[in-house]
Amino acid sequence: MLIQLSHGGGGGATAQLVQSVFAGRFKNPYLQRMEDSAVIDLNGPLAYTTDSFVITPLFFPGGDIGRLAIAGTVNDLLMMGARPRFLTAGFILEEGLAIADLERIAESMAQAAAEAGVELVAADTKVVEGKGGLYINTSGLGPIDSLHPVRANLAQPGDAILVSGPLGDHQACIMSQRMGIQNGIQSDVAPLNGPVRALLDQGLAVHCLRDATRGGLTTVLNELAATSGCAAELEEAAIPVRPETRALCEVLGLDPLTMANEGKFVAIVAAEAADQALDILKQCPQSAGACRIGTMTAGSGVILNTRIGGRRRLNIPWYEGLPRIC
Amino acid sequence: MLIQLSHGGGGGATAQLVQSVFAGRFKNPYLQRMEDSAVIDLNGPLAYTTDSFVITPLFFPGGDIGRLAIAGTVNDLLMMGARPRFLTAGFILEEGLAIADLERIAESMAQAAAEAGVELVAADTKVVEGKGGLYINTSGLGPIDSLHPVRANLAQPGDAILVSGPLGDHQACIMSQRMGIQNGIQSDVAPLNGPVRALLDQGLAVHCLRDATRGGLTTVLNELAATSGCAAELEEAAIPVRPETRALCEVLGLDPLTMANEGKFVAIVAAEAADQALDILKQCPQSAGACRIGTMTAGSGVILNTRIGGRRRLNIPWYEGLPRIC
Repeated sequence: MLIQLSHGGGGGATAQLVQSVFAGRFKNPYLQRMEDSAVIDLNGPLAYTTDSFVITPLFFPGGDIGRLAIAGTVNDLLMMGARPRFLTAGFILEEGLAIADLERIAESMAQAAAEAGVELVAADTKVVEGKGGLYINTSGLGPIDSLHPVRANLAQPGDAILVSGPLGDHQACIMSQRMGIQNGIQSDVAPLNGPVRALLDQGLAVHCLRDATRGGLTTVLNELAATSGCAAELEEAAIPVRPETRALCEVLGLDPLTMANEGKFVAIVAAEAADQALDILKQCPQSAGACRIGTMTAGSGVILNTRIGGRRRLNIPWYEGLPRIC
Repeated sequence: MLIQLSHGGGGGATAQLVQSVFAGRFKNPYLQRMEDSAVIDLNGPLAYTTDSFVITPLFFPGGDIGRLAIAGTVNDLLMMGARPRFLTAGFILEEGLAIADLERIAESMAQAAAEAGVELVAADTKVVEGKGGLYINTSGLGPIDSLHPVRANLAQPGDAILVSGPLGDHQACIMSQRMGIQNGIQSDVAPLNGPVRALLDQGLAVHCLRDATRGGLTTVLNELAATSGCAAELEEAAIPVRPETRALCEVLGLDPLTMANEGKFVAIVAAEAADQALDILKQCPQSAGACRIGTMTAGSGVILNTRIGGRRRLNIPWYEGLPRIC
């Protein structure tokens, strides 16, 4: 069974599709009311965000567009020190999409939502002409309840820079899939509630959090350094990259530090909290490979101290080179 | 200048596009922080909703996809008795879209947002291959502060059924555009804050509100009747339809009662409040053509008392017949 334009018409065919694909998988009192909006109860301050997901292929080792659409928005809320609670989803289906694939994606979303402790409270489905593809937009909402504020402008000289694990796997996985390379690289796509909330709930002096998605570590650190008015100084030898991802990068001439991740984040923490933060991260399965990779300093930009003793500036790439990576 | 895949890469090209097209038009402290999420302050209960917009053509008499994306989500919040406050927007741009068109759409969104009193607090832009099209997803949030609860299941036998003005114009406009017919029909797309808040702020006993979008009046009333466990009985002669829209429907064999509107709503109000509600609606420019069109009764479904003295049941259309109408 394939998606047809009539599935997006808003009449009986749409209702039947929603009932058979989504209703059973996202069962909660919010959705069941079938109103124009969900009614939720939250008190501010709240983090509120949105992201669209257009990745190809729809399914890849380690995940799929559905898991990505949940994790991406949940992680954006976490990075503000929020506790993710509610999501909305907008599906734009292309005619010709297999309904079995849509069901698999809905199932994966439901699992990722359960993993992240969020509820999908409102959704919308449209159908357009096309070649069997699918886009998903999610928005997310959660109360900010971290003891200390977590903001992009709070990094200070002396702060430690931590990453939650090896870098570049998501992009390396998607590139390998598109090129038909069998190398076993899996996307790291995951909601990061475990490690982020472990840091925040301990009341550690976490100054900035940022997930290293499009543009990778280099882009994130340039943004945090610029916003905070200081520099990030990194030790190349300390930055974790899996051997198979490094091998792919060497063959293709890519830099793992500008490659997209979907389950890794950067934490900038007060120097005195760095050891404890690293210990906490290493105890969470999703950040078992966490490392301290550098220090914030006076100055500007991102500087890499290379393995061979050089120093070089890392700039935001003009274009990260891979469309439809998320 | 046309959109290229590099505009969606998340690097410098994306930043430049966002800066030149969106930043000046949606200036507010929430967006300016450039964080992963906006931080907003609201206290529950809140209405929370999402919708995607895939209409073609992008520009049409009376509006464009940008105005539609604001009005559609704002109206869904209003229909729950909420005061719309914050929106997010996710843009999926197809390669080849003229940047001048994107600017025109962003401008129209900014105007519609100002008209509706909402702020766009978070946004995302992706670029995909394609033929120069554009999809927009919006989500919206606002506190529910109506004196009486407004819900789909609160209609009762005896309640009056009001519509805020003539039906079918949005769909008639889009169909005319696609067929190249010059008939002057304009879409009614508009945020409905004016009339809806006028009703709610007067504390009138409004039981249900629903905007008559895809599937039109027939679909809305079937849903409200089923959810409330009663019937809707309509007087055909009382239902307002503009002559030019009626003429198009007659030529094409269409039913204005199943056609989509984007600036009209149905209000089901207690019998004793009906006259005052109608007076209030008639005083608002966006609902100057409001009419009482029928009464909720015991029973089920939607019954039309026709002009020529017949009675017939109006069923939800299986497929409303026009893809990409919103």
